[in-house]
Amino acid sequence: MLIVQKYGGSSLATVERVFNIANRIINTYKQGHKVVVVLSAQGKTTDQLIAKAHEIDPNPSKREMDMLISTGEQQSVALMAMAINKLGYPAVSLNAFQVGMHTNSTYSNARLKKIDTERIEAELDRKNIVLVTGFQGINKFDDITTLGRSGSDTTAVAIAAALNADKCEIYTDVDGVYTADPRIVKNARKLDEITYDEMLELAALGAKVLHHRSVEIAKKYNVELEVRSSFNDSEGTIVREVCNVEKMLVSGVAGDKNVARISVIGIPDTPGKAFELFSLLAKNKISVDIILQSIGRDGTKDISFTVARSDLHDALKIIKENLERLGAKDVVYKEDVAKVSIVGAGMATNPGIAAMMFEAMYNAGINISMISTSEVKISVLIDEKYTEEAMNAIHERFRLAMER
Amino acid sequence: MLIVQKYGGSSLATVERVFNIANRIINTYKQGHKVVVVLSAQGKTTDQLIAKAHEIDPNPSKREMDMLISTGEQQSVALMAMAINKLGYPAVSLNAFQVGMHTNSTYSNARLKKIDTERIEAELDRKNIVLVTGFQGINKFDDITTLGRSGSDTTAVAIAAALNADKCEIYTDVDGVYTADPRIVKNARKLDEITYDEMLELAALGAKVLHHRSVEIAKKYNVELEVRSSFNDSEGTIVREVCNVEKMLVSGVAGDKNVARISVIGIPDTPGKAFELFSLLAKNKISVDIILQSIGRDGTKDISFTVARSDLHDALKIIKENLERLGAKDVVYKEDVAKVSIVGAGMATNPGIAAMMFEAMYNAGINISMISTSEVKISVLIDEKYTEEAMNAIHERFRLAMER
Repeated sequence: MLIVQKYGGSSLATVERVFNIANRIINTYKQGHKVVVVLSAQGKTTDQLIAKAHEIDPNPSKREMDMLISTGEQQSVALMAMAINKLGYPAVSLNAFQVGMHTNSTYSNARLKKIDTERIEAELDRKNIVLVTGFQGINKFDDITTLGRSGSDTTAVAIAAALNADKCEIYTDVDGVYTADPRIVKNARKLDEITYDEMLELAALGAKVLHHRSVEIAKKYNVELEVRSSFNDSEGTIVREVCNVEKMLVSGVAGDKNVARISVIGIPDTPGKAFELFSLLAKNKISVDIILQSIGRDGTKDISFTVARSDLHDALKIIKENLERLGAKDVVYKEDVAKVSIVGAGMATNPGIAAMMFEAMYNAGINISMISTSEVKISVLIDEKYTEEAMNAIHERFRLAMER
Repeated sequence: MLIVQKYGGSSLATVERVFNIANRIINTYKQGHKVVVVLSAQGKTTDQLIAKAHEIDPNPSKREMDMLISTGEQQSVALMAMAINKLGYPAVSLNAFQVGMHTNSTYSNARLKKIDTERIEAELDRKNIVLVTGFQGINKFDDITTLGRSGSDTTAVAIAAALNADKCEIYTDVDGVYTADPRIVKNARKLDEITYDEMLELAALGAKVLHHRSVEIAKKYNVELEVRSSFNDSEGTIVREVCNVEKMLVSGVAGDKNVARISVIGIPDTPGKAFELFSLLAKNKISVDIILQSIGRDGTKDISFTVARSDLHDALKIIKENLERLGAKDVVYKEDVAKVSIVGAGMATNPGIAAMMFEAMYNAGINISMISTSEVKISVLIDEKYTEEAMNAIHERFRLAMER
C-alpha cells in the first residue's frame, strides 16, 4: 500500500517525541508499505517566529511572513529524517520547492493548485521514507506561500490525492472524531466512521479535529482519511464517502458560542430589501449564518440573523449607518446566545430527526429562538447558558453513547 | 552604482541591530544605488540548529543538516525585509532556490558553480532592495547545500561577480584588515588597501577577516571588496588587484600557534623517498606546510616539516608504522613551535625584505628553525613562547604602524 501520514507540531515538540513518531513511521514502513509523511513545525516554532516578526512590524508583509514561518516545517522534516536514519532506516526530507507544491498567490492563505509527484515517486522507488513539509507551497513567481490554519492536513490529503494513495492517516492529539466534545458531554463516544459530508458539517460547526478544506479535498478525490492519536495505538475514526448502512442517522452534536444574534426591525416588506442588507454585510466581509425573516405585517417585516460574535460590533456599526437607506426602524442584538447542532448523513430524508431534537430541548425546558437545517445538519439557537445542558440532552436522546 | 553588501550574524542578533542594519542598507539605497544584500543567520541560530540535530544524531546526514541549517538565513532575509518595509522602503527576500544559486553536490562544503541573475535583476528593476540568503545553494538534484565556513562572504562576492557589481562591501565585527592582530601588537594599524594575493596569504595564515575562498573569487572576477565594521562608520580596508604603488612592500604580520614540527631522521638519500613520505601523509589527509631537507651525508638525510598541531598525533602514528618501509632511522617532533609570517605584494622581487625580517628576529634574540617563502609571504618557525615578541619586533622593524 501507499500510505500518507501527517503528524502535527505537538507530536514533534521534544527529541523523545520525534523518536516516538520516527518509530511509528518505521513500523508502517517495515510492513512493506510505501510511506510519505507530512509534518508541521515543531511545538511552538511557528508562534515563536510570528512573535519575532511582530517585534519588527505588527503588520508585516504576508509574503515575507510566509518566507519566515515556512522554515519551521523545513526544520521538522530535516530533523525527522535524521531520527529515522539514526534508527537505521532510509529517509529523505523535501520542501515545497523540491516536491513542486504549486499554489495560487494568496500569501498566508493560499490554495493548492497542483502537486508534482515526480520527485516523491522517485524517492519512494529508491525505498526512501519521504518526509514532506506541510502547510507550504510555491506560487507562479517561485515565492513561498502558506496554506493557512491546519494547512498541513490539507497538504497531506492533497498529496494522498495526487499520489492516488490507499490511505491518508492524520495523527493528532485526540484519538478520533467524537459524537460530542468529551469535555462537555461525559459519555461522548468516538465514532468508528463518518462520511465526508458529516465531517464537513462538524468542521464548520467548530469541531477542531479536521479543517474543512482538507475534508473537501478528500471528498473530491475520494481519499480515505483516518483521524487517530499520535500518542497511543487506538483505532481512530475513518472518514469516507459511504459508511455502514446500519448506523444511526445522527453522528454527532456540537456547540458553538462564538455567535450573536442581530435583528433589523421594521424593514419595508418590498422585494430586494433582504438582498440589500446581506450584500452590505458581505461587502464588509461579515459572514451571516442562520437567517429568520418574520412574516410581513403592516407593510414591514423583521429580519434576524446570526454572525460570529467577533463580527458583532462591525455589523451593528454598518447597519446603523445604513438604517435610513434600508428604510428600517431599528436594529437590536443579543450577545449571550449559542448554536447547538446535530450532524448526520441522510438527515434531510428523515423528518423524525428534527422532531426528536426539538423534543429533547422541550423536555430540558430550553427555548429555541432560531432554527436552520441542511442536508446533513440541524442547528438551533438558544440562550448561551444552556449550551452544555442542550448538548447533553440531545446526546442522550439520540443514544449517541451507544455503539451503532 | 550596483552595490552588494554582506552582513554577518552578530550584526543581526537583536531587533535593535536588525533595524540598525536596515537603516544602513536604506542609506545606501537612498543615494540612488541598486543594493543587493547577503545575510547570514542571526546570532547563534546556526549553532542552535546544529545542537538540535546533534541531540538526535551526533553524526547526522550532511544533506539533512544542510536542509536544517539553511533555514537560519531564510529567517534573516525575511525579517530584514520586514524591517526595511517598516521603515518605508521596498525590499524582497530571496533564498537559494529563488535566486538560482547553483553549487556542486558536496553537502556542508559545496562550491558555487553558477548564479542566475534573472530574478535578482528583475527585483532591482522593480526598485526593490534585494535580500539574499548567504551560505546556501542548490545542487543538480534540487537539494539544498551549504558552502562551509564563512560561506556568506563567498555568496556575496560571487553575486557581485555574477551581477558585475561595482563594489562588494563585507560588513563584519572588525573595521578592516590590520597589519597584525591588535590584541597582540598594540600599535597594529588598519590598512586602507591590500591586494587579493596579500589578503589570500593573510587568510591562509589565520587572519579571520575574510575566508580565502571569497578572496579567490574576488581575484578571479576582479571584484572590488571592502571590509568594514557593521557597528561604526569608519572607512574599511579595500581589497583589489593593484594598490597604491607608493605603499610599503609589507602589509602585515601574522602569528600561528597551531603548528608542530616533525623530523624524520636518517632517510636513505635516494630519489623518491621524500615523495613516498609526503604521499603517505597526503593519503591520510594530513597537510604539510614548511619543509626543510638536510643535505645528504653518509648516504642518508633528514626531512623536517610542519603540520597542524591537531594532526601531529596521526602524522606520527603513520610515520612510525611505515618507518621500515621508508628506510628511516627515527622520527622526532617538537610541539611548542609557532609560525610567524609577513605578507606583502611583490616581496619576491625585493630580497631586502627577508633580510630585514631576519635582522629583526636576530635583534630580538629569537632563533629561527625553519624558513618558507612565496611570492607574497615569508614565514619563519620559532619557539612558541616568542610568538608575540617576534610579531612586535617585525611590526616595529617594518614600521607598519606608520601610514604608508
